[in-house]
Amino acid sequence: MNILILSAGTRNKVVQFFKSELADSGKVIATDCSTLAPAVYDADIFRHVSRIDAPGYMEEVYDICTKDSIDGVLSLIDPELSMIARDVDRFKALGVTPVISDYELVETCFNKAKMAELFVRKGLNTARNYLSVDEFIKAKDRGDISYPVFVKPVCGSASIHINKVSSDEELIGLFSMYDDLMIQEYMTGQEYGADVYVDMISGKCTSVFIKKKIKMRAGETDKSISVHIPGLCDSIVRFVEEVGFRGIIDIDIFEMDGDYYFSEINPRFGGGYPHAYACGVNVPKQIINNINGEINPVTIGDYRDGIVMMKYNEIMIRDMNGEKMI
Amino acid sequence: MNILILSAGTRNKVVQFFKSELADSGKVIATDCSTLAPAVYDADIFRHVSRIDAPGYMEEVYDICTKDSIDGVLSLIDPELSMIARDVDRFKALGVTPVISDYELVETCFNKAKMAELFVRKGLNTARNYLSVDEFIKAKDRGDISYPVFVKPVCGSASIHINKVSSDEELIGLFSMYDDLMIQEYMTGQEYGADVYVDMISGKCTSVFIKKKIKMRAGETDKSISVHIPGLCDSIVRFVEEVGFRGIIDIDIFEMDGDYYFSEINPRFGGGYPHAYACGVNVPKQIINNINGEINPVTIGDYRDGIVMMKYNEIMIRDMNGEKMI
Repeated sequence: MNILILSAGTRNKVVQFFKSELADSGKVIATDCSTLAPAVYDADIFRHVSRIDAPGYMEEVYDICTKDSIDGVLSLIDPELSMIARDVDRFKALGVTPVISDYELVETCFNKAKMAELFVRKGLNTARNYLSVDEFIKAKDRGDISYPVFVKPVCGSASIHINKVSSDEELIGLFSMYDDLMIQEYMTGQEYGADVYVDMISGKCTSVFIKKKIKMRAGETDKSISVHIPGLCDSIVRFVEEVGFRGIIDIDIFEMDGDYYFSEINPRFGGGYPHAYACGVNVPKQIINNINGEINPVTIGDYRDGIVMMKYNEIMIRDMNGEKMI
Repeated sequence: MNILILSAGTRNKVVQFFKSELADSGKVIATDCSTLAPAVYDADIFRHVSRIDAPGYMEEVYDICTKDSIDGVLSLIDPELSMIARDVDRFKALGVTPVISDYELVETCFNKAKMAELFVRKGLNTARNYLSVDEFIKAKDRGDISYPVFVKPVCGSASIHINKVSSDEELIGLFSMYDDLMIQEYMTGQEYGADVYVDMISGKCTSVFIKKKIKMRAGETDKSISVHIPGLCDSIVRFVEEVGFRGIIDIDIFEMDGDYYFSEINPRFGGGYPHAYACGVNVPKQIINNINGEINPVTIGDYRDGIVMMKYNEIMIRDMNGEKMI
């Protein structure tokens, strides 16, 4: 079995995990638009591709699927997830299983307002949010919310253009300058992350790994500790099964005064997944099983708590053509 | 021979390099005030210490020097460098060689105004700087400088409280709010870094590794490429020998219109040093030789250009007591 990892970037660990799980039974093929993406050099084969927004990009991906006899495909970057989800049938026609949720659901994940609505509809807590200044000011007058608040793009990825706002003037100023903004309750409290696998055949949630984030750096979890929180775990299982996620997803959660607030879902491997893998929550293996047509057993909670993950910098050395220097 | 690495933090690679160079001939002992510092778990021995600003901290370090028969000591964080440089005699009395330059010179490195003066006195280019609003406005009226400018603390480390300023009002406002600020020319252009070793016995510069910084992330070099720039290399050698640096230093340089501007010197291993090591510029070995009383040969320029370094995240897993989980 051969696995294609798109836009591998700096996610060396994910590439290494798939290599290790496949062992001699298949190859890992990794793509990137840059030859300076260290993860591609940990793969068996590196395919240098165009930028994902270049015309004909998806055709390049299909060509790789054929040429390298690919069985399963996944992407590690947000903007590519919808592209894969939209073309699921095309991949399947080539005998390739895309590790991704339904297109509609993926799109919902990248729309903060729709996602919040989904959380609320399914009975989960989430930060209050408002799509217009009027709506927010009415809520503020009722005492539902107060400054400071976050103003952010409804569909933005990462931490781009997020402002902490403390006055009507600033709020009105931002809304007059930019389109598609939303106002979100300012969340504080302890952050948690969950790495969750939903079996792609049975639709059952098979793994939930919960970690408390100890230290952040440049928007990423730098240190975290594994924990068991049965109530939160149950909420996650119910939610992801009801909504119909498939494959690997990464969930961000805040805890305030004993309540858990769902903040975001990335329908892909999160940057902190190596912590789960090191604790025995083996998602690459479950993906390989699913692609082989095998249903994974439910192993929720099968990890030790109190295990700490600490990130540090490793380096990859190559010459400008991606060749090994020695 | 045993080497003590203070405040090892996340600098696993430096710890690994020393272990590899010492092989069976000695041990690497690493300290940190946190048990969540991944680098300490790559050392032979981890000594958990107080914060460097705690009373009695240096006594803890001397105790380790005695208990672990330490031969050489270095620190990986800025605030500790002056502490070590000030206490050189105390270390030497214990038979320990501190890998550090003279106290006066270390202090100069952390004072941006004094450092700029030193660069200029030795004939090197550096960004213009002014210690008062009056002085700056006179220079601006003469046409020597124009907005935007950087306003930063004279003695700040890292990127704390650095503002890009574009008006007299803003400038006057900042100077009325904070003490010990300086105004610095806004530098653009290509950034370079140099990892430089000055033999601690002969005082000769033995290694200069120059790299072009391709990508920065959270204030650190994320990708870089090795280059040879003979003129710049000559300037560096002359400067560090004349000024009297000792041991490992890390230099930041900007290039604009073919001229090189010296920006900063850190008298310690820089975060990008693993690139130099991978290219064969072996500083740990030279440190070990010096501690053994051996003078290192001059090997300036002994590396290939066009070699790329790409960082990615590796992880260290431990339980809360720092014990291995399995």
